Amino acid sequence: MAEIRVPFFDTDAMGVVHHANHFRYFEVARIHHLRARGVNYKDWTDKGFHLPLVESHCRYRRPARFEDLLEVSVKVSRQGVRFVFDYEMINKNTGELVATGYTHHVPVNDELKVIEPPQDLLDAMTKGENHG
Amino acid sequence: MAEIRVPFFDTDAMGVVHHANHFRYFEVARIHHLRARGVNYKDWTDKGFHLPLVESHCRYRRPARFEDLLEVSVKVSRQGVRFVFDYEMINKNTGELVATGYTHHVPVNDELKVIEPPQDLLDAMTKGENHG
Amino acid sequence: MAEIRVPFFDTDAMGVVHHANHFRYFEVARIHHLRARGVNYKDWTDKGFHLPLVESHCRYRRPARFEDLLEVSVKVSRQGVRFVFDYEMINKNTGELVATGYTHHVPVNDELKVIEPPQDLLDAMTKGENHG
Amino acid sequence: MAEIRVPFFDTDAMGVVHHANHFRYFEVARIHHLRARGVNYKDWTDKGFHLPLVESHCRYRRPARFEDLLEVSVKVSRQGVRFVFDYEMINKNTGELVATGYTHHVPVNDELKVIEPPQDLLDAMTKGENHG
Repeated sequence: MAEIRVPFFDTDAMGVVHHANHFRYFEVARIHHLRARGVNYKDWTDKGFHLPLVESHCRYRRPARFEDLLEVSVKVSRQGVRFVFDYEMINKNTGELVATGYTHHVPVNDELKVIEPPQDLLDAMTKGENHG
Repeated sequence: MAEIRVPFFDTDAMGVVHHANHFRYFEVARIHHLRARGVNYKDWTDKGFHLPLVESHCRYRRPARFEDLLEVSVKVSRQGVRFVFDYEMINKNTGELVATGYTHHVPVNDELKVIEPPQDLLDAMTKGENHG
Repeated sequence: MAEIRVPFFDTDAMGVVHHANHFRYFEVARIHHLRARGVNYKDWTDKGFHLPLVESHCRYRRPARFEDLLEVSVKVSRQGVRFVFDYEMINKNTGELVATGYTHHVPVNDELKVIEPPQDLLDAMTKGENHG
Repeated sequence: MAEIRVPFFDTDAMGVVHHANHFRYFEVARIHHLRARGVNYKDWTDKGFHLPLVESHCRYRRPARFEDLLEVSVKVSRQGVRFVFDYEMINKNTGELVATGYTHHVPVNDELKVIEPPQDLLDAMTKGENHG
């Protein structure tokens, strides 16, 4: 579970977190989730492996505001060539559900060609939470 | 149709537009689309009317890069209390489809309570492109 | 001292943190610094007190990259009506200096008129690091 | 002169453009300025030439808000190895000065080593406005 303290610069003139930022928080949670399972996304990208999005979705339940402490949990699964990440974003101060969403990813190389994913990514899907 | 020249700061270390920014481009296109039909979103917000997202979705077809000229077309319709905006993002240099997506919105007041939408918003849905 | 783990979305096509984001990290550090001294910036803004920038500066020493752990230290002082925050950004993995900078702020109300600052802000300048 | 229509997502909970975004607008204006003088920054980066910042500064005069039309003018000069860009940001609706600032840049290659700048960049400094 990744925790995010909402920074002021992520709010908009409605006084709430701008809706595009939820996908950034999903990204933070996704990379944190992988790291907690021994998958270092940065090492991957340095070796020419990437996991770009092919699809994204978010359902906004309650607004998040400056200084709110958000907790984002992640589940990962596979659908054919795609890796599917499902997210749930909770406001830790109130316990309220802020948002749910998903992102779909396809493993590619530096030339953006689809490739077989590394074994540690496949392993990460079957592991429980270690220290994340 | 809104045109967006991809700024350098919207790219990420993969060399392409980061996926959260597509929702920002959708927003630019949405506000442009409304303005072209006589709806001034800023006037609305000043009067305490807002159109926040309750749901968003994007399908990423091709990467967009620094300096690409993107064209985003918009269609608006209504589903119950929701306003549905559908987007198509084209790379004008190559003619390729970059992304498609949608956002769903619910009209609210300053206290985020659901309200009846202004008449000019309803009218905007039935108008053709004027000068946008 | 605030710690920031560089998110992927803050990098640009050069593979490094985009230069505008340093000012966001300064903001995170500034609010963290005040919080560690008993000043809750969010409470202020809810009461109609703000501390907007009138000037900002950054000297970029070394690039920061995805997943780098940055540590930003803050010093605050007063120059007339201005509050001056000085920042030093270190890469914790390498010990290298990433950036230095400053921001100048003037206390205002909701109508952006200059006002006297709250006492807790004045006190915060003379306190040592508590738990931040 | 580059024109920027302030997008909603660039505002913050104070209802004004967040201060980090001014450096993004400076970047848009800088690249526009070079393009108007025959310098294609994207072609440079593709050939392994970059112009990263070593220093940046902004003085905030008046807030900018959603939908404001900003005009940013640019002057470029040289100080030793540095290229110095000076900016002036005007609100076209009111004529008011919004911000002034500068950025200093050093020409580097893909490995971030300082190199001699291309001739077209040097030429660009002595040319008047063509079509920008």
